[in-house]
Amino acid sequence: MKDVMYFDQAASSWPKPPAVMDAMMICMQDYAANPGRGSHQMAVKASRVLFETRKNLARLFGIKNPNDLSFALNTTHALNQAIKGFVKPGDHVICTNIEHNSVRRPLEHLKATAGVELTYIRNDEEGNIQLEDFKKALQTNTSLVVVNHSSNLLGTIMPIAEIGEICRAHGAKLLVDAAQSAGILPIHVGGMHIDMLAFPGHKGLLGPQGTGGLYIHPDIDLEPFMHGGTGSQSEAIHQPTVRPDRYEAGTQNTVGIAGLNEGVKFVMAETIEKIHAKEWRQTQMLMEGLLGIEGVTILGPALGQNKTGIVSFNINNADSSEVAFILDQSFQIAVRSGYHCTPLAHESAGTLAKGAVRSSIGYFTTDEEVDALIYAVKEIQSQYAK
Amino acid sequence: MKDVMYFDQAASSWPKPPAVMDAMMICMQDYAANPGRGSHQMAVKASRVLFETRKNLARLFGIKNPNDLSFALNTTHALNQAIKGFVKPGDHVICTNIEHNSVRRPLEHLKATAGVELTYIRNDEEGNIQLEDFKKALQTNTSLVVVNHSSNLLGTIMPIAEIGEICRAHGAKLLVDAAQSAGILPIHVGGMHIDMLAFPGHKGLLGPQGTGGLYIHPDIDLEPFMHGGTGSQSEAIHQPTVRPDRYEAGTQNTVGIAGLNEGVKFVMAETIEKIHAKEWRQTQMLMEGLLGIEGVTILGPALGQNKTGIVSFNINNADSSEVAFILDQSFQIAVRSGYHCTPLAHESAGTLAKGAVRSSIGYFTTDEEVDALIYAVKEIQSQYAK
Repeated sequence: MKDVMYFDQAASSWPKPPAVMDAMMICMQDYAANPGRGSHQMAVKASRVLFETRKNLARLFGIKNPNDLSFALNTTHALNQAIKGFVKPGDHVICTNIEHNSVRRPLEHLKATAGVELTYIRNDEEGNIQLEDFKKALQTNTSLVVVNHSSNLLGTIMPIAEIGEICRAHGAKLLVDAAQSAGILPIHVGGMHIDMLAFPGHKGLLGPQGTGGLYIHPDIDLEPFMHGGTGSQSEAIHQPTVRPDRYEAGTQNTVGIAGLNEGVKFVMAETIEKIHAKEWRQTQMLMEGLLGIEGVTILGPALGQNKTGIVSFNINNADSSEVAFILDQSFQIAVRSGYHCTPLAHESAGTLAKGAVRSSIGYFTTDEEVDALIYAVKEIQSQYAK
Repeated sequence: MKDVMYFDQAASSWPKPPAVMDAMMICMQDYAANPGRGSHQMAVKASRVLFETRKNLARLFGIKNPNDLSFALNTTHALNQAIKGFVKPGDHVICTNIEHNSVRRPLEHLKATAGVELTYIRNDEEGNIQLEDFKKALQTNTSLVVVNHSSNLLGTIMPIAEIGEICRAHGAKLLVDAAQSAGILPIHVGGMHIDMLAFPGHKGLLGPQGTGGLYIHPDIDLEPFMHGGTGSQSEAIHQPTVRPDRYEAGTQNTVGIAGLNEGVKFVMAETIEKIHAKEWRQTQMLMEGLLGIEGVTILGPALGQNKTGIVSFNINNADSSEVAFILDQSFQIAVRSGYHCTPLAHESAGTLAKGAVRSSIGYFTTDEEVDALIYAVKEIQSQYAK
C-alpha cells in the first residue's frame, strides 16, 4: 500500500487516517440517503453527519455559526461561489501575483466580461508582499481583496491578519484561499478579519476528494452560484435565503463529507500546531539536504523561515518534467512538475521557462522518505543533470 | 444493514452494489492522488479511472466521444453549467410545469436578471404534455428547450425523441434532465436528438453521492460555469478550450467517480431493459395494492401505463408528512413526503395544499418490501387516516 513515497501532498494528501475510510464505508452501507430531503431515519442520519462536520469545521476555523459554512465540490467551486457571487460590475478587486488559477481565472473572466477592474500585487522572489503595496492599490471602488493563505508553488505564508486589518479599515472584504493552509496553519476567521474562506477537504484536512467548503460572514449575502432544489422552501421560485441551504443546491456529497468529518477530527486531535511544526521540521531537513547538492535551487522562502510543507526546486537547467519522471520511475517517488496552475508565481520566481519540481510534505511523510528524496535528487544530479 | 425498507430511491439509490464500495476503498487506499495534475503513477491511475468511467458512461448514453462528457458534483451542478453557460440575454427558453427546481430556479434567475423569456408547457394531471403545445410555444428567439426525462413526483416519461425532433427542426437545442432516468430508462443522445444531458451518479446509476455529469454536443461551446485550474494550459489566463478540462475546473471527486464506474458497469451488465422491466412490474404491484385501499389516491400515470419506479400517493386528506413519519417510526419504511422540489407538478396533480407521499422503487427493492408497504398503508388508513 505505501510502496510509493508520496510527495504530492499539496495536490491531495495521502494516505488518509483509517477513520476516514471507515466513516465512508459506514455511510455507504448504512445511511447513504439524501440529507435534508426526507424525514426518515436514514436521511436524518445523513443530515446529522453534515451538521456535525459543519460544527467541527466551524470550531477549527473559529466560525461562530456552523450554518455560515457551506459545502462545495472543491476549493475552486467555493472560490467561484465567493467571487462571482460577490463582485459587481464596476468593482475593483485586488489579488496577488501568486494566486492559483482558481482565483485568477474567475477574476480575469469578470474583468473580460463584467467590467471589473483587477490589480495584481507583485510578490518578491520568495513570494512575500509588502503591506504598503496593498494600501496603495486600494481604490474607492475596491470591494474585494483575494489572497491565498499560502502559495501552492513557494510555500510562502501570507500575513492574512494584517491584510485583513487593512481591508477592514478601508471597507473592502477579504476572501482567503486556504487551499494550502486549511488543517496546516492556524486559521481564525474572526481574529484574522477573514470575510470569506474557501478551503479543500482533501488536502490538509485529510478528507477525500470531492469535498471542500466556503465560509461566508453573516453580513454578506452572495447571489447563489448554483440555483436548484434544497429540500427547503420548495414552493419558492428563487433560492431560499436560509443558510446553508442557500449555497447548497442539489444533493451533497454525504459520503465524502462523512470522511471529511473524520479528517477534521484527526487534525483537531493532533492539533494544527503539532502538524505544522512536524511538517516545518521536515521541510527544513529536505531543504538543507537539497541545498547541499550542487546545482539545485529552491524556490520560495529561505532556510529558517516559516513556510508550509512545499519545497519546489530545480536541478540546473534540467526539465522539471523529466526530473519528476525519473523520480517516479526509478525511485518510486511521486512529485509534481511543470507549472502548478500559477503562472505569475513562476514569473516572480524566475521559472516561467522550465517550471519546477514541486515536492510537498504531509502529516504522514516520514524522515526516511525525506532522506530518500534527497538521495534520489543527488543521484539524478550526478548521473543526469550535472 | 438492510433493516430499513428503503422506498426513497428517487432521492438516492440504496443499497449500492458491493463493487461500488470496493472500488472506493481501493481508490482511497491506493491511488487517491490528483488526476490530471501529476505524471506520477498514482496520478496516472486516478486519471485512468476518470477516463474509464467517462468511456462507460459514453457507451451507456450513446455518446461518441467520452471527452464530451464532464463530471459534476450533482445534477444541479450539471444543469447550472448547461443553462447558465448556454442561455444569452434576449433568448427564449421553454420548459414544462413538472420540472424540478434544479431547472426552474436557474431559469427563473435568468428571467429575473438577464432578460430571458420563459414559457412553461402545461402538463395534464398524469404529467403528460402535448407535442402540439411545444410546437406552438416555439418563437424565433427560442434557443433552448429543457425537459426532464421523467418526473420526480409522478414518474411520467416524456417523449424525448419526439421533443428532440421538434427542437432540431426549429433550430433550438434540447437539454434533458435525466435525474430520474439515467440507469433506469434507455437514453441515446444521438437517437433522441439530445444536445445536452445532465444526470446524477447516485440514483439509477447506483454510484455514490457527490457524482453526476453533463454531456455537451461537440458543436456547442458553453461558457464554463467554474473557472479555475485544470492541470492543462496552466499559463493561459482563460479556461482551456480542450474537453473535458474546460468544464472540470478544480480537483474532481476521484473516489466518488471510481465508485460510479462500478455502478455504471453493474447497470450495463444487468441491462437497462431488465432494470426498467423489474421496476415497472413492482410499480404495478404497488399501485394495484394501494388502489385497493379505500381513500388512497395515486398521482401520475394510471395502472398499466409506462412509468418509472415512482409511486406518489395520498391517504384521504391526511398530511403527507404525518403518513411518512408513521411509516418510518412504526414500520421502518423510508419514503419522502412534502413537495419534492417541484411545486408546479403538484399544482398539475392537485396536491399543492397537502403535498404527497412519494415512494420509489429501485433495483434492489424486493417484492416482500412492496407487500410490506401496501400492508403499512392499509394499517395507517384503517387506524388513522380513515
